[in-house]
Amino acid sequence: MTVLGWLKGYRRGWLAGDLGAGAVVAMMMIPQGMAYALVAGLPPVTGIYASILPPLLYALFGSSSTQSVGPMAIVSLMTASALAPLAAAGSALYGVLAAQLALLSGVVLLACGLLRLGFLANFLSRPVMNGFTIGSSLLIAWDQLGTLVGAPLPRWHGPSAALGLGALALLVLARRHGAATLRRCGLPPGAADIGARLAPMLLVALSIVLVAVLGLDRLGVRTIGAVPAGLPQLNLALSGGHWQTLARPALLIGFMCFLISMSGAQALAARKGEKLSTNAELVGLGAANVGSFLSGGFPVTASLSRSAVNFAAGANSQLAGIVTAVLLGAALVLPTGWLALLPLPVLAATIIVAVLGMLETATLRTAWHYDRADALALLATAGGVLLMGVEGGVVVGLLLSLGTMIWRESRPHIAVLGRIAGTEHFRNIERYDTETRGGLLLLRVDAGLFFGNVEAVSARVEEALDAHPGTRELVLVLSAVNAIDTSALFGLLELNAELARRGVRLHLAEVKGPVMDRLKESALLQRLSGRVFLSTANAWNALSSGDE
Amino acid sequence: MTVLGWLKGYRRGWLAGDLGAGAVVAMMMIPQGMAYALVAGLPPVTGIYASILPPLLYALFGSSSTQSVGPMAIVSLMTASALAPLAAAGSALYGVLAAQLALLSGVVLLACGLLRLGFLANFLSRPVMNGFTIGSSLLIAWDQLGTLVGAPLPRWHGPSAALGLGALALLVLARRHGAATLRRCGLPPGAADIGARLAPMLLVALSIVLVAVLGLDRLGVRTIGAVPAGLPQLNLALSGGHWQTLARPALLIGFMCFLISMSGAQALAARKGEKLSTNAELVGLGAANVGSFLSGGFPVTASLSRSAVNFAAGANSQLAGIVTAVLLGAALVLPTGWLALLPLPVLAATIIVAVLGMLETATLRTAWHYDRADALALLATAGGVLLMGVEGGVVVGLLLSLGTMIWRESRPHIAVLGRIAGTEHFRNIERYDTETRGGLLLLRVDAGLFFGNVEAVSARVEEALDAHPGTRELVLVLSAVNAIDTSALFGLLELNAELARRGVRLHLAEVKGPVMDRLKESALLQRLSGRVFLSTANAWNALSSGDE
Repeated sequence: MTVLGWLKGYRRGWLAGDLGAGAVVAMMMIPQGMAYALVAGLPPVTGIYASILPPLLYALFGSSSTQSVGPMAIVSLMTASALAPLAAAGSALYGVLAAQLALLSGVVLLACGLLRLGFLANFLSRPVMNGFTIGSSLLIAWDQLGTLVGAPLPRWHGPSAALGLGALALLVLARRHGAATLRRCGLPPGAADIGARLAPMLLVALSIVLVAVLGLDRLGVRTIGAVPAGLPQLNLALSGGHWQTLARPALLIGFMCFLISMSGAQALAARKGEKLSTNAELVGLGAANVGSFLSGGFPVTASLSRSAVNFAAGANSQLAGIVTAVLLGAALVLPTGWLALLPLPVLAATIIVAVLGMLETATLRTAWHYDRADALALLATAGGVLLMGVEGGVVVGLLLSLGTMIWRESRPHIAVLGRIAGTEHFRNIERYDTETRGGLLLLRVDAGLFFGNVEAVSARVEEALDAHPGTRELVLVLSAVNAIDTSALFGLLELNAELARRGVRLHLAEVKGPVMDRLKESALLQRLSGRVFLSTANAWNALSSGDE
Repeated sequence: MTVLGWLKGYRRGWLAGDLGAGAVVAMMMIPQGMAYALVAGLPPVTGIYASILPPLLYALFGSSSTQSVGPMAIVSLMTASALAPLAAAGSALYGVLAAQLALLSGVVLLACGLLRLGFLANFLSRPVMNGFTIGSSLLIAWDQLGTLVGAPLPRWHGPSAALGLGALALLVLARRHGAATLRRCGLPPGAADIGARLAPMLLVALSIVLVAVLGLDRLGVRTIGAVPAGLPQLNLALSGGHWQTLARPALLIGFMCFLISMSGAQALAARKGEKLSTNAELVGLGAANVGSFLSGGFPVTASLSRSAVNFAAGANSQLAGIVTAVLLGAALVLPTGWLALLPLPVLAATIIVAVLGMLETATLRTAWHYDRADALALLATAGGVLLMGVEGGVVVGLLLSLGTMIWRESRPHIAVLGRIAGTEHFRNIERYDTETRGGLLLLRVDAGLFFGNVEAVSARVEEALDAHPGTRELVLVLSAVNAIDTSALFGLLELNAELARRGVRLHLAEVKGPVMDRLKESALLQRLSGRVFLSTANAWNALSSGDE
């Protein structure tokens, strides 16, 4: 529901949950936003900038009550990969282009939303999406290893490596045992889970103290340096001259922002019994990305890990997102000098733990046993990301999703039917004891007819005719055919002509209402060499009695 | 059938037809090959070179008996568009790259054939393919207008324009009235049709005489100039350094070669009752393109217009293609000096008439009335070719084909079922007078479940539950579900959990054999809150008697 929806229905009892969740997510967002800005190749503070306007705008237009919109690891990786050929990371031009990429992605999302293209969410299969996440996570973790140990691999810088690996170990421990430990300390289970999620924030604070006390920065540990205080300036920079080059990555980033956000939103909406509108989601994310441009940020989307915390912490509406945004804005207005000593190896550790947390092998294991083709598509997509980068990975995944679909659709099941003696039931002659009549062939096509399978259906019909010589009457039983597209209409016209040449009449039976409505507008019914029967039994009676 | 197939089954009675058809196609090929070489931006003689080895190799590996493989207008246009950014048309490098593009396209086709990816022929819908042909034809005709009138538009060169427009008028007359006139002169209908198809060859001969007699070349009419005599040299040039840039157009050209060839082959094979193997077709076309590389040619495919003439002239096997190749080779060994005076405006006229002959509006008109979405996809693809070029057009067409498919699949038909009183038949409650039981909801899903529609199905199930409050037992009737992919399996698991949360049990009924085999390997059957029933009637009896 959009802002009017949730504001109108707002209940006073929701307020505590929204305030608490908003605060928890804000504390999670500070290290995460800065870390994902680093992944995108940008100064850490831009990650905070990209966490203020986007959730505010999403709250106005988005449809989910618990989505937490802001920087997200995979989208940051895609941003870095799009900008790498155009500008040096850290340069002023790089920052301008990152914001422009957010603007273009936002425009793509808004356009798709206004054109009601929400069905595009169905373009990637779940195994392919999982493969994409796995490949991207590994790529991001790999990229951070150098920062973690303070030097490009295989070298390392002692104090940095100690800090980074120590932080990594603590974060893994917190993720594995944090919640249980807090429960044992007496916290209620919900609060314990959320407390464990704040480990990165605590670690960031702790590491700043450590750097200050031990003077680690003077030992060569790199820190994020001075963070400008104050809210982001309004950014309207449209120069840079790379609009055309940015268009293609913006399309892909917009597409992935939408898919990543939807997959999380659907999981949480199901638990709340909430209805999502894919088109409102497109508009909400589009507005959020335009907001990110205005605050000099980079492409953003909803992160499942943050949204899940938001949900678990009791968010009841997008007011929680607004609270997060206000708190982050307030944090920037307060003195930010203390952040300067935040060591990069610790940020790298938070990134690595966050992205490795996105790795899950359940989908792969399930697919491997259930449907090997899906499992191979998953592995190929992950491999595509690792070998060809995120853009190549998306394209590989898209083609594999669609390829497996076309491949399956191009092999429709077709059954030769016979009558179950003494009834008006007609079933597959291979599975049931049925009676058939010489010269009459009944074929049931178990798939809608469209360009992807019409040639295969024609070929299968001709095979069936070869296997049943002497056939004079062929009945296509269309009980399972929900649609016939234009390509299939032409295919049926050609099949009709071809069968006439062979001296076989083509009949149709059990044509569904919506299919019949369309066929009435076409030439097929006039040219059909045979008749259209309401039921298979009618066809059987008319065609086997010899009076037809 | 491949060479062993047709050689083994060769009958003496086929010989006359094969020899005659081979000769007719060779005469058609001389102007056509040269014209399409010009479209590709190459010296006209390369069009003859590309018409010798390719049909020989196709005869060895291809599956159709009547395909005429060689230069083809749309593929030549794609070649020109791929090479334009890399080398100047007419330069030596351009010729080298054109042959390498044929090699790469051939390798793509061979690889697809060996990997048995013949199902890729189903990737473009017929309206989209038609839109692509219309857009390409108009683009080619437009490109030839300048050559037709001897100067870049809007200027013209008098003698050239007179010759070009005169040739155009004669060719249009021959196409419209040639066959009828020849019949009236006493030729049998078949021969008259074929005779009319040789008009371009006659016109070429006539125009050479005209140029020689009137000295038109000295008046500024451009001619093709000296044609080197002799067979093409074996080309093995692998230098040039643009392999990586050529890879993407080679993929698209290979794909289009295959689609163009298959659409023609299927039409003719249906008339001959011949079985095609899409994989053999891939290998045959791949070998033909490698052959074109070896003879210094450019990408080739089967042209529907030539194949149709080959078929009509009585070709019974690929021997006809071999005859064409041998005759063209012989023509190159004979003196070729007479060809030098062939005027370019006449060649331009043959191109324009040939490509405008590919325009047909029947598909658009049918689609417009039958299925508006298909008609719009056709127009968008044609527009894509005209505005963005052939590559952009292919991509637009591919996305539109797949987009419309996903869009349709993402809106599956779902019926609420009721029992027809006194029977064991269950039908849509909106269409039939049926009885229902409170607390029991029967839903029939009329589509296979896969990533493209599983979210929509879940959403529709929840809508149905909202519309039938008090439901405790939900039965999904899967009689029309032919497959459930991994994404849909996860979707059903989530639906099962979500329904359990609402206090509704999920049951399955009429699960098809192959679907059940897979589900047995999955967690769904263990986790299912309800039961699996053989028939809807069983579910009705068990769940409405209250003992379940």
